[in-house]
Amino acid sequence: MDVRAAVAFEAGKPLVIETVQLDGPKEGEVLVELKATGICHTDHFTLSGADPEGLFPCILGHEGAGIVVDVGPGVKSVKKGDHVIPLYTPECRECEYCLSRKTNLCQKIRTTQGKGLMPDGTTRFSFKGKPLFHYMGCSTFANYTVMPEIALAKIREDAPFDTTCYIGCGVTTGIGAVVFTAKVEPGANVVVFGLGGIGLNVIQGAKLVGANMIIGVDINPAREAIARKFGMTHFVNPKEVEGDLVSHLVELTHGGADYSFECIGNVKVMRQALECCHKGWGVSCIIGVAGAGQEISTRPFQLVTGRRWIGSAFGGARGRTDVPKIVDWYMEKKINIDDLITHRLKLEDINEGFHLLETGQSIRSVVVY
Amino acid sequence: MDVRAAVAFEAGKPLVIETVQLDGPKEGEVLVELKATGICHTDHFTLSGADPEGLFPCILGHEGAGIVVDVGPGVKSVKKGDHVIPLYTPECRECEYCLSRKTNLCQKIRTTQGKGLMPDGTTRFSFKGKPLFHYMGCSTFANYTVMPEIALAKIREDAPFDTTCYIGCGVTTGIGAVVFTAKVEPGANVVVFGLGGIGLNVIQGAKLVGANMIIGVDINPAREAIARKFGMTHFVNPKEVEGDLVSHLVELTHGGADYSFECIGNVKVMRQALECCHKGWGVSCIIGVAGAGQEISTRPFQLVTGRRWIGSAFGGARGRTDVPKIVDWYMEKKINIDDLITHRLKLEDINEGFHLLETGQSIRSVVVY
Repeated sequence: MDVRAAVAFEAGKPLVIETVQLDGPKEGEVLVELKATGICHTDHFTLSGADPEGLFPCILGHEGAGIVVDVGPGVKSVKKGDHVIPLYTPECRECEYCLSRKTNLCQKIRTTQGKGLMPDGTTRFSFKGKPLFHYMGCSTFANYTVMPEIALAKIREDAPFDTTCYIGCGVTTGIGAVVFTAKVEPGANVVVFGLGGIGLNVIQGAKLVGANMIIGVDINPAREAIARKFGMTHFVNPKEVEGDLVSHLVELTHGGADYSFECIGNVKVMRQALECCHKGWGVSCIIGVAGAGQEISTRPFQLVTGRRWIGSAFGGARGRTDVPKIVDWYMEKKINIDDLITHRLKLEDINEGFHLLETGQSIRSVVVY
Repeated sequence: MDVRAAVAFEAGKPLVIETVQLDGPKEGEVLVELKATGICHTDHFTLSGADPEGLFPCILGHEGAGIVVDVGPGVKSVKKGDHVIPLYTPECRECEYCLSRKTNLCQKIRTTQGKGLMPDGTTRFSFKGKPLFHYMGCSTFANYTVMPEIALAKIREDAPFDTTCYIGCGVTTGIGAVVFTAKVEPGANVVVFGLGGIGLNVIQGAKLVGANMIIGVDINPAREAIARKFGMTHFVNPKEVEGDLVSHLVELTHGGADYSFECIGNVKVMRQALECCHKGWGVSCIIGVAGAGQEISTRPFQLVTGRRWIGSAFGGARGRTDVPKIVDWYMEKKINIDDLITHRLKLEDINEGFHLLETGQSIRSVVVY
């Protein structure tokens, strides 16, 4: 079938809106009509050419929401008409990882997904007879896509697409890191480095679980107002701190953070995030993605005296199990997504969405189909 | 009173056996007659001058066992005749750390202990009228010492002093890291870097909790036999591995270690210990003490994909609560200490014990008073 897509023909070039061809779903696959998709830093990272694993030409996008329009043979867990969120981290519920009870990183289709292919090793998208790579197993920058059944979270039908699509990545990554990965408990003191979309979701996750101090750290003073709206109790601008930022944060928290989160991707900040943690038990969680080849470091004494250094991918969420819960939290107004969607665009204007992201003007731009 | 002690007058010089003066116990303090003491790498580290916090002249030693001979005013938890193990990590059961349920690092007397003093800011030991510093709050290289009540674990009276003294540091540090810090579960695959005293205790801790593979890594082939006796199932000599050690260990464990332990103090090995862990859930625990100023490093991707980097001090054990349990495990033959005590010495021969340690001839030398 013909579908409308924003195609990434090569790194560093704007996306091009084209009519491309999409084959129907094969065994275990599902055809999804996308209704909305967020534009995420990861899409930008790949499009820029900085992602060493980027493959072109491809259809980017991994933060969508839509409706099932057809299913291939053997599909049992979703049917035509179901509302779904595509999952770049699937949940097969039968691999060693899914069954470990310790991780959300299902490995069932990892190899082909990493190569921009469907699990059978081929692509469903093509343009002028030549294949287009899938991206993160999702490719939501098209009004239709084909997904493996295990990579679709079925969600309630009263949830609006143009906000819940953000649960497909940013919301879950931030809130999940608090709830599922770090398991922050009520009364904990939390420090959040970087108040972009992920950081704001970490903040509302910390508020959701009843944290005590929720300290936001950002060099952009314009982020203070919205962060306070999401639950931040204290704002620290490193540019305005006299002396050492880590010492300042340890003093402010009367001994150090019980939990800290790095939401930038800066390896120096990752070290600060660890070292501002409380002796004996502070946990520092890395969410941000660092540049290729960059390394974190610290003195081992930091760990021997009880700090723990961990990381989180997709918020530790098992997509099919936990994403529908987060949609419920949103619909029950336990979390706020509406105020994070700062821009809505047509597919034709998607490059404007990338510009807004690059220049820090948006928190999240959403393409509405 | 006059007591016999091995005095460290200055860094880098042998200990000197002297008769020194010991004041009686003040409020909350206890006079202990030591019956045995181990000689530990930490004593050697401080005596060598490499410890930036080392204070001289002092009485070293922190791995003792003995009998209460007198108590100061207000002491309630021990009485004359009780058998005890001195604790360099006390357990006051009332500070923020003790009450956190998250750490064993009681901070009640940390400041004075770090300065070589009793909690009232003075010393009990003196020589020719001049004070001698306490060491790690214990100073077990004397046949009598004074301890704060909160730094004494009361143990059963049928436990022999010349082996249970080792529970005061090495045994608890190794076994505790497995049981209390990492909480290794039955069936886990464990990799242990360094098969000295700590590493052997990690191995028997892993065996105690029902680990599956227990892989020991050491460049000294002579360690293989004793490590197997303590529960090691596989021995890896890095000098005999073709190619990358980390890849070899990941392959051997079919995906990586569920838990790894660094028992050397080498920051490069600490990185290997992290990176040989299983994606998604592997936990790497640092036990070894690195040289001053040295740093660990890795790519943050290691953590984002689910590995966790932690550390352990005194095995995460709460001294007064957990040390008596470990003594029970020894008396019930659940753990083996006897085969780790390779040498018994008189106090007069203590410098020979340091020589055995330096040259790797001993696992543990014990001074018997």
